[in-house]
Formats: sequence, C-alpha cells, structure tokens
Amino acid sequence: MGTHISKVRTQDARFYLEGGAGSDALHTDPQYSYAVTLLETDKAIAGTGFVLTLGQGNQLVTAAIELLAEGLVGMEIEELMASFATHSRAMADHPQLRWLGPHKGVVHLALASITNACFDLWAMSRGVPLWRLLLDLDDVQFASLLDLTYLEHVLTSEDVVAFVDQQRQGREERRGILNTGYPGYDTSIGWLGYDDATVVANAGKAVDRGFRALKLKVGSDDVERDVRRATRLREAVGPDVRVMIDANQRWSVPEAIANIERFRDVDLFWVEEPTHPDDVNGHRAIVDAATPVRIALGEHVPNRVVFNNYINQRAVHFIQIDCTRVAGVSEFLTVSLLAKRAGLPVVPHVGDMGQVHQHLVLFNHIALGCEVVFLEHIPHLSQYFADPAEVQDGVYRTPQEPGSSAALRATT
Amino acid sequence: MGTHISKVRTQDARFYLEGGAGSDALHTDPQYSYAVTLLETDKAIAGTGFVLTLGQGNQLVTAAIELLAEGLVGMEIEELMASFATHSRAMADHPQLRWLGPHKGVVHLALASITNACFDLWAMSRGVPLWRLLLDLDDVQFASLLDLTYLEHVLTSEDVVAFVDQQRQGREERRGILNTGYPGYDTSIGWLGYDDATVVANAGKAVDRGFRALKLKVGSDDVERDVRRATRLREAVGPDVRVMIDANQRWSVPEAIANIERFRDVDLFWVEEPTHPDDVNGHRAIVDAATPVRIALGEHVPNRVVFNNYINQRAVHFIQIDCTRVAGVSEFLTVSLLAKRAGLPVVPHVGDMGQVHQHLVLFNHIALGCEVVFLEHIPHLSQYFADPAEVQDGVYRTPQEPGSSAALRATT
Repeated sequence: MGTHISKVRTQDARFYLEGGAGSDALHTDPQYSYAVTLLETDKAIAGTGFVLTLGQGNQLVTAAIELLAEGLVGMEIEELMASFATHSRAMADHPQLRWLGPHKGVVHLALASITNACFDLWAMSRGVPLWRLLLDLDDVQFASLLDLTYLEHVLTSEDVVAFVDQQRQGREERRGILNTGYPGYDTSIGWLGYDDATVVANAGKAVDRGFRALKLKVGSDDVERDVRRATRLREAVGPDVRVMIDANQRWSVPEAIANIERFRDVDLFWVEEPTHPDDVNGHRAIVDAATPVRIALGEHVPNRVVFNNYINQRAVHFIQIDCTRVAGVSEFLTVSLLAKRAGLPVVPHVGDMGQVHQHLVLFNHIALGCEVVFLEHIPHLSQYFADPAEVQDGVYRTPQEPGSSAALRATT
Repeated sequence: MGTHISKVRTQDARFYLEGGAGSDALHTDPQYSYAVTLLETDKAIAGTGFVLTLGQGNQLVTAAIELLAEGLVGMEIEELMASFATHSRAMADHPQLRWLGPHKGVVHLALASITNACFDLWAMSRGVPLWRLLLDLDDVQFASLLDLTYLEHVLTSEDVVAFVDQQRQGREERRGILNTGYPGYDTSIGWLGYDDATVVANAGKAVDRGFRALKLKVGSDDVERDVRRATRLREAVGPDVRVMIDANQRWSVPEAIANIERFRDVDLFWVEEPTHPDDVNGHRAIVDAATPVRIALGEHVPNRVVFNNYINQRAVHFIQIDCTRVAGVSEFLTVSLLAKRAGLPVVPHVGDMGQVHQHLVLFNHIALGCEVVFLEHIPHLSQYFADPAEVQDGVYRTPQEPGSSAALRATT
C-alpha cells in the first residue's frame, strides 16, 4: 500500500533565452537552468522538484542532490511527509555535507530541489493540486512539515498551530481568490539588455495584457541611463500602474542611498536588491535613508535564519522569498509565517517562473492571511512545462492539475 | 620573463582520522579532506592552495575550482598579484556561478582554494615565506590585493593605506615575534567522541608540552556531560591555563543563554559557536546575556559582508576567520583589518591545520598591530604536509621555507 520512492534521478536541464532576456546588472549572460530532482515510484507517478541556476554549475547542484537524497529510496510518501521536518533537518545537517553550507549555497539549493520534489509527489499521489493539499492539512500536520531549528526563540510548533488556527477566521472568505485568480506582475518588460524603445513598447503591451505592475532592471554603469529609462517607463504607463526597479545588488550602500533619491519623481512601488544580500545592517541603513520608498529583497537570502535577521532588524519591506533558493516549499512556508507575523507582505521571487509559487501564494493568503500583492510573472520557459501557469488579463488562473505544476515536458 | 601559470590542476585529497578525532556536536563522522588547487608553471615551481571539507562533497569544490580558475592559465604571477583584487572580484562575480552563492558555499570555497594557490605561488616565485612577502609590500601594493566591494561605507583602499601606514609605529618592535614564535593552543584534547578520562589525560600531556590554553568540545545531548567534562578539565589543569568550550552551533539561542550560565564555575576564556553562524541578532542576544563570558565564532562565516555585520552589531568578541572558508588569504586580511579597527582580536580557525595561518598571524601582528592571542594547533594531518608547522613548547616556530607552507607531500 502507499506510494514508495523507488529511485532518485536528477536532470541537468538548460534552456536558451533570446535577445538579452534574463540579463541584469550582475548576471549579464544567463542561461536559465534547472537542477531537477525526479522521485520515481512504484506507481505510475513521479515527483518533480527543481531549483534555478544560471547555467554553469548546474551540475554541481545535481551532484549534491544525488548525495543528499540517497536516503529517500524505499520511503512511502505519506510516511515521509508525516514527519517531513525531521527528514528535512537530517538532510540539512548531513554530518559531512553540512560543512559546505551550512544551509546555503549549492547544498541548500540541492535540498530545495529535493524538498520540492517531495511536495510534488505528495500532491500527485493524492491526486490534488498542491494548494489544495496544503489547505486540507490540519494545523498539527502543517506544523510538522516545518523545520524550526534555530528559530526556537521566535517560532515554535505550538506558535505555528496557534497562529494557523487563529487565521481560520475569515478563511472561507479568502477562498474567493481561487475564483478570481492571483494577480501577476510583469518582470519581462525591462531586462537590462533591452534598449529604451523596447522597454517602452513592452510596457505598453504588458498594460494591454492587463498587468498593473511592471519591473525595470537598473544598476547600469551609468545611473543616468537607469533614471532615464524609469522616467520613460513612468510616462508611458501613467500614474496608476505600479513601477518597481531592481538593482540586482549592483550598488554599494552609499550608492544605493544616493541613487534611490534620484528616482524621486518616478513614484516607485519598491526598490529591489539595492546591495549585497548578506548585508542586513546595510539594508537597514538604506531603509532608513530611502523612506518612504520601500525595499524588497529575498531571492538571494538563503534560509530562515537570515530572513529572521532581516525581519528582526526591520531592514526590508517586501519578503521576496523563493522556494528554489531556501530549502524548498517547507522553508518558504516557515518564512511566510515569520513575515506575516511581522506584518510584512510576501511577494515571491519566481526562480520557478511561478509554477510552484502560484500554489504557495494561494495557501499563504487563504490559510495564513497574507496580504495579496501580486506574483511575479516570467513567461520565458512556459513552453518547457507540462502544465504551464495560465496568466490571463494579468491574473494567474488557479491550477487544477494534481501536483505542484513542476513537471517538465519530456523533451527537454 | 616571469613565472607563468601553465595549467590549473585540482586534487581531491581525503585523509583518515583515528578514534573520533575531529568529531563535534554536528560533525559526528568527519573525514578531513582538502579541495586542492595546483597552479603549475613554466618554472620548476607550483602554487598550492586548498580548503577544508569533511569528506563527501569535496569533489563539488574541486569541480567548482576548475570552472572558476580557467582564466588564470597564461597569466604571469607578478602581474596577477599586482591587481589581485580585480581578478578576485571577477571570479567572485562570475556571471553564471555567482548565482550559486553569492560569496558563500561551494563556489566561495573554490575561490578560497584558488586564491590561496595564487598567494602560495607568488611567495614561491619570490623564494620567500608568505609572511615575509606580505611584510615587504608597500602600503599601496597591499591595498590592491583586497577586494573591498560592498565595504565602501566602512573600508576603502585609502583607509587601508592610511591604517597600515599608521601601524608602522611599533612595527620593528613587533617583529620580535619572529624570534619568539607565535603561541599555540591545543584543540585536540577534547573532541566530542573522547571519554572523560581521555580528555583529562590529553590535557595533562598538552600542558606538559607547553600549551597554556585548551579547548573542549561541548554540545552533547546531555549538557550535564558537558559541564562535568569542563569541570574535570579545569580541575586537572588548575586556574592558570585558559579553557575554552566549543558548541559547534548545537544550541538554540535560549539554550545557549541557559547553558553558558551553567559553566559559571569553570572560568571560560570563551564560548565558541554557540548557535547558527548566520544568526547575528541571536549572537548579539547571547553576548548580552553571557557577559562577562566572551563569544568566539567565524569558521562558518562566509565573507567580509557577514563579518562586518557581526562586528557592527557587537555580536562577537573573538574573530575566528579561516582563510579556507572566506575567499582565501586576501579576504582573511580584509576581515583582519575590520576586526583590528574595531578592537577585536583575530584568532583564526585553522581549516589548514595552521599551515597558512601561521604566516598570516605573524603579518597581522607585525603589520596591522593585531593583538597576539594564540593560534589553534591541530596536529592530525601534519604527516601529509611537505613542510609541517613546527610547534615546540606550545609555540609555532616561524616558517622559513618559500611559499605558504601549503604544499602536500606527493604521496597523498
């Protein structure tokens, strides 16, 4: 009985992007790639999980997956997920591989890929989409998914149970989002490699397609270029569309403070990754100087401990956690809880192109009471997914297929 | 003319330890291993650099070295080192591999191994030990070694030049350490796997060999055991020997605060790695609660940005940076400067078993004016080095061979 994992396979999947798509201030020549975990079973289903890399080094992550996931073979998926926190922690604290992190870099990306495959398989085996599986858990089952080690002073299992229970008030009402869909925003209008005319043209098309929020890459060698592009973008879309800029860690702390001031006439909804993602103190200084402009970050924040430091220090406004950076779906949910309790919105970065995160933001809103902001939409890789996210009129349609929408088409 | 790098080779070197040596609360079954970079040249010399891992995954680091170091082939070593910060930054910000960090985990370990090989080759090519090479640099040459990106608000090249110049006062006097040798401390008396009697016996032998400071691993499942061992150790060595304990990140923040209090009768010189190395805020809380007991950490702090946060927040007392964890010799020196300017002692963790660090602490003291505390001594691997560190009467003898003492015997 049950669904047993019979084999762990990995896939080093690399995709070609066209014409500067994906480029930013520090990642000038990306080849979007996925380090994929495939959990084969004794049934006709498999679990798929993956993390994003930018090409070279993707094979380091798949090699780490093979080292970490060994112990999963033979396990039954319901039994595994009944005490997932324990298994996740054992992999995170592998007595030899832990040294290579801990809880960051290649080994943590590998754990994320494995974790995401476990959640995908779980939902596949129950025949339901991941968002529904998560909503159907009772509070204790939910808490047992989360490895809360090193958060003992902030968030215990008992806290999780109490918080989720408290959020049951209003939950039925919040399920309305399943019908209306979750709003998206368009990141693909303004990659750093695009010229001004392309940005303006893309912005017009995005607004026509229903998006009410657009993001522009900045962090050029010439900040004048950045300001000019942002200004043209604002002029093109008018005052009612939200405009964000993303510096991709290109600035020093003093540069960030000086440069953000130069965009004062653009009315920015946020400034993303102004400087190094490890610099909590630096971001706190930027937050203090940039007010009322708000700061977003998270795509390079590796784990719950660092997120907790950001939240604690009030060094960030928008939590851009990515389940393909932290240890997968479960650490994503842990950080979402920390953020919600601190009153900060969770707006995921979508290393998965939104495929898995479309499930997670629905759960976050309905079960945790997280505010609906919008979910990043990057359409580049949709042709490679078995069930690509459907974004219509600027809104993610609620996925209905079993699993986490992570499965890739067989041909990649 | 000059010495050109003709080939980059890597070596996955793994060593067997006996009887629980190297074991601690989280790393219960280590196989000390080095991910080695070998820079072959058109002369009869080669540069050796390495980083420590605990066995599995060592091959991930060597694979990353091969990806990162490609561009060094053909370079002349003096030209390379004349603008080393630029080259180091280019590797740290590799447009595709950066995603796997940034500046942490496997790719940063790889950069450390490469950097250390560059410094070793440089000293080999000049025919001098590394400590002497560093002391002979002028202030501007020294500053050009250091990638200070993301420290612009804290430490500029001009600051480095001014600081080193200022420290020239008293420098001749401090050169006396070259004759007296740098004091060591013994980590090998109290691995977590050793029984009480072994610890007490080892302590006696270490004191007989001239050590005035000893370290005990704690973080057992049973804190009573830890307190008992520390108490026996204190009784065995008397009040004049320094005793440190090392929890290797085993405790939560509240556990650390409660447990440290239980050692109050042992007179601890420091408590090392009480909790997760990413938790700056947590360590600040521990520092506040544990005073006057002091906190040491650094072996798992990946880069200058995180160290700067620790220093800024006054969340640590002893900076245990390791040039086999941060980006090698140059980032080690950068963090040493940050620490010295903040009045904090630098007491390296020795992933290199002290081979390279014996050079660096001499430079730190003589050129930067860093306080002499002591340098960790772990003799396990000395048989594998071409020129093993000589520790006599508890003191490191100043190495005189060319290079950084990193070369391994050919047979490994």
